Amino acid sequence: MYRAPVDEIAFTLKHVCGLSDLQKSARHAELGDDLVDAILTEAGRFAAEEIAPLNKVADAHGTPLENGNVSTPPGWREAYHAWIEGGWNGLTADPQSGGQGLPQMLSAAALEMWNSGSMAFAIGPTLTIGAVEAMEKHASEELKAKYLEKLVTGEWMGTMNLTEPQAGSDLNALKAKAERNEDGTYRIFGQKIFITYGDHDLTDNIIHMVLARLPDAPPGTKGISLFLVPKFLVNDDGSLGDRNDVKVAGVEHKMGIHGSPTCTMVYGDEGGAKGWLIGEENRGLACMFTMMNNARLAVGIQGLGVAERAFQHALAYAIERKQGRAPGDTGEDGMSPIARHPDIKRMLLGMKARTQVARAICYACAHAIDMANVAEEAAAKTFWSERASLLTPIAKALSTDFGVEVASLGIQIHGGMGFIEETGAAQHLRDARIAPIYEGTNGIQSIDLVMRKLPLSGGEHIRGFIQELTDIADEVAASNRPEFGATAERLAASLRDLTEATDYMLAAQADGRIADALSGATPYLRVAGLALGGALLAKGALRSANEPAARLAERTLLARSFCETTLGETAGLKSDILLSAAVIQGFDPEALAS
Amino acid sequence: MYRAPVDEIAFTLKHVCGLSDLQKSARHAELGDDLVDAILTEAGRFAAEEIAPLNKVADAHGTPLENGNVSTPPGWREAYHAWIEGGWNGLTADPQSGGQGLPQMLSAAALEMWNSGSMAFAIGPTLTIGAVEAMEKHASEELKAKYLEKLVTGEWMGTMNLTEPQAGSDLNALKAKAERNEDGTYRIFGQKIFITYGDHDLTDNIIHMVLARLPDAPPGTKGISLFLVPKFLVNDDGSLGDRNDVKVAGVEHKMGIHGSPTCTMVYGDEGGAKGWLIGEENRGLACMFTMMNNARLAVGIQGLGVAERAFQHALAYAIERKQGRAPGDTGEDGMSPIARHPDIKRMLLGMKARTQVARAICYACAHAIDMANVAEEAAAKTFWSERASLLTPIAKALSTDFGVEVASLGIQIHGGMGFIEETGAAQHLRDARIAPIYEGTNGIQSIDLVMRKLPLSGGEHIRGFIQELTDIADEVAASNRPEFGATAERLAASLRDLTEATDYMLAAQADGRIADALSGATPYLRVAGLALGGALLAKGALRSANEPAARLAERTLLARSFCETTLGETAGLKSDILLSAAVIQGFDPEALAS
Repeated sequence: MYRAPVDEIAFTLKHVCGLSDLQKSARHAELGDDLVDAILTEAGRFAAEEIAPLNKVADAHGTPLENGNVSTPPGWREAYHAWIEGGWNGLTADPQSGGQGLPQMLSAAALEMWNSGSMAFAIGPTLTIGAVEAMEKHASEELKAKYLEKLVTGEWMGTMNLTEPQAGSDLNALKAKAERNEDGTYRIFGQKIFITYGDHDLTDNIIHMVLARLPDAPPGTKGISLFLVPKFLVNDDGSLGDRNDVKVAGVEHKMGIHGSPTCTMVYGDEGGAKGWLIGEENRGLACMFTMMNNARLAVGIQGLGVAERAFQHALAYAIERKQGRAPGDTGEDGMSPIARHPDIKRMLLGMKARTQVARAICYACAHAIDMANVAEEAAAKTFWSERASLLTPIAKALSTDFGVEVASLGIQIHGGMGFIEETGAAQHLRDARIAPIYEGTNGIQSIDLVMRKLPLSGGEHIRGFIQELTDIADEVAASNRPEFGATAERLAASLRDLTEATDYMLAAQADGRIADALSGATPYLRVAGLALGGALLAKGALRSANEPAARLAERTLLARSFCETTLGETAGLKSDILLSAAVIQGFDPEALAS
Repeated sequence: MYRAPVDEIAFTLKHVCGLSDLQKSARHAELGDDLVDAILTEAGRFAAEEIAPLNKVADAHGTPLENGNVSTPPGWREAYHAWIEGGWNGLTADPQSGGQGLPQMLSAAALEMWNSGSMAFAIGPTLTIGAVEAMEKHASEELKAKYLEKLVTGEWMGTMNLTEPQAGSDLNALKAKAERNEDGTYRIFGQKIFITYGDHDLTDNIIHMVLARLPDAPPGTKGISLFLVPKFLVNDDGSLGDRNDVKVAGVEHKMGIHGSPTCTMVYGDEGGAKGWLIGEENRGLACMFTMMNNARLAVGIQGLGVAERAFQHALAYAIERKQGRAPGDTGEDGMSPIARHPDIKRMLLGMKARTQVARAICYACAHAIDMANVAEEAAAKTFWSERASLLTPIAKALSTDFGVEVASLGIQIHGGMGFIEETGAAQHLRDARIAPIYEGTNGIQSIDLVMRKLPLSGGEHIRGFIQELTDIADEVAASNRPEFGATAERLAASLRDLTEATDYMLAAQADGRIADALSGATPYLRVAGLALGGALLAKGALRSANEPAARLAERTLLARSFCETTLGETAGLKSDILLSAAVIQGFDPEALAS
């Protein structure tokens, strides 16, 4: 079914992504290796035993809307309550609000396992945690006192309400309205779509974070405010009061994550939903970005979690299923497990390497966020904030693309059985397919990377980052281990491609050739992600000298495999970046349709 | 919805893939351009008006099994009967059996359009046509007299029964049994799975082609015979008699093509299904290959058909949907159609180029089959048979991989709407995802290409083929048209990669390094397919000199786009082929699971 790869997760945290840097900080001084291992082990147990068995049931059951209420699949309410009783919801929240104050790295590791268990289950709390982060940073003490602790424990869940039919990636077009009441509260009106866990029966109350415009707000994104709108009003003693004027008008019929209710929400149909301002009027976008930024990493981790699950699923099938005789194999019945056929091995290697790349990049991103949080000196804070900013779009886009690629390979390994829903392999692809889309499409991540992250510190941050990766390639070369094959050369070549592409992008922006930069953004992100991924796999192999010989060999082979096969993409992608602006700008899709 | 691209199809047939070669042959002397155009236009009309509207209904409805009978979605029976009344089922069949004797090229073009209309609808007749081809070549005159005409008109449909639970890609393990009756007929026993259109209500009778073993048959694939097993026995006057001992035991719940019933069939539960031998005892595999070979091209055309539909779907959305302001664009409301954003244009170009590549390769494969059929001299027959053999696995695997890639890009362009089933974009991916699996997985196509097709004529056929493509690259270079950008150089570079990879593969086989050849088979097929695709797009642009200027410009841009972006893959793929054998052979998946 699913076995949590706790050893590999712990190794990646500790030896590839720098968990020990945090353990040396004052804030996390109490986080010893024993505690880390205990947390990972228990999270792994919970994910495998309590969540993973719910995944398929939920896919078939969905989240029906009846009489204005959404119900979750059988077993979900019990699992959710066991999960919050385990304290998992408040892992990273501020201890002052009842959280455990653990680093994002541990949260990322746990979140990987929840997502391997069930992406549709794991996504709900992700939204709650986003609401917690927005409130911790921006809400008044009064609001915090009333809502925060219950959101931190998970007794209540939170949602994010951004999207409207005409306002998806482009929030300028947002129309939801907010009107001031005399008592300092607001009346909220409007329709929101694609609201994840907009309604459900897991908790007694749901706290909606809603973007809306005040009547006198300036146009565009500078006129958007963020409001807290509870499903049930909360009395001063914390008990639940009246139902607020918010309704779920529909639940989407989606390709995947059927266990996650995606709702159309209607606010204010009966005179206005009561809302409370978070942060300042017209400054809602900043609050929302607090929620969204970590949500982007969380979506990257969805790609990772589904990839790990799909890999384990395909591996088990490939070992069990016998067809044909593999070269050099001598089976009694003339048939080998398909896991011995070279082409199946190629696919399994590709799946495993991509999964481990996604893991290392997501954890490295979490590490940067943590380092920015614990940094005491301004220079360090700037450095790690920039690193987190740089890695977030890569973690989101590459991991979710890999999630889709790995899930699709998993179907392929299953052959005809992969297309049959009972097998479960198809669900992984159907679930994974949303992750490159939401929380900013991967195209938007690429544009964010090129237009906003490359220019950080005048381009010096990205150059320093590439140098760090080059040091790893040099270390591989210096190791002189023949088992690395062409790893060092292929990695160095990809880093040269990345350097050349970076130079091109920075020059294009310096020259004001914005369309040129935008044209190559998607392949640029992939070059950066692949080179980073190859370097992190190689680092894992380099840091395995003291590990059991089988682990050292396995990690070396994995790094070599990725660098000798997948990194081969970067040369073509670099040419694409340099060449495609002319073609893209010469292409007029509207003429095709006429 | 769907508009048949009749102009592009006609151009590709005539000016890229050599339809005129056939028009010069004695067999197709009556096939004038007017007739070709009339056939394409009417097929396009039927596909767009009669089939395309059924696609989404079928996805939601499926093919329920009740009381032992499978029913098809609403409107399908009417559409099927209108389709056979149009004579479309017998397009390529022998005029002696009531067919029209048209070339495979026209059938491929029509099949593209049926598949764009609805892949689940189009697949049914594909199986019937396979049965017709097997019977035309191998069945006795008596059987032909009784069954062939009704299969050619489509009054009855046919099926292919190969797969059993333990025998998928590996038919050695086949267990279904056949016992001789004294009257020369046989009793058939066994279970078959994944039987496409195994039962349905479109026709009054269904003619099953079933592989089974005689009691005294040798083991393995040399002991397999092919039997005709009708659902209803047929009286001597052609009327329907008793129900045969064949039942549908279940219908699969699949990821896609929900309108196509995938059945588990049980033969002989009540004493033996009555069957008639096709061809000779123990020679069934040869008959089955007759059915399967054209079926592989037909599956490639599924990838093409879905790609075209997904492209049109995404293009229409990208023109209609407004979000954000594209560089240089000045919209009144500050928003541009997303089709003007460079990253969306990149995706649309990638979709269109892949679709046209799939079209050109599939039609080129059909052309080779036709040329082998009309060839009068032995050398020409050999040449074109080898060319058809070479192109079939490429057409199948590349087109179906492209079908998945294009459908997935189509979802991405739709953003969040792409994940909502009502939009229809997700269905294209769910439908397309089976095509890389069935009729021989794409891994098996790659192995077929490397192990059986490269060695044809001692490797000279593939070398001559690469030279033909190189001539196109040279012609692009000689054209000196700046609009081609780097097309010539990139195409030539890919062809050098293909040459080097081919040398490696032929040497590996000559040296008996079979595992090395198998390890690189999948990237080899992709290098070959991409280089061929780039060459055919370039050829389309070169042959557009007499076309309207807009068409010339569009085809040039498309060739340039594909060569400057997608062809960049081949350098990395070549390295992969050369390097990955060591890694793959050093990888032991079974150790990972222990």
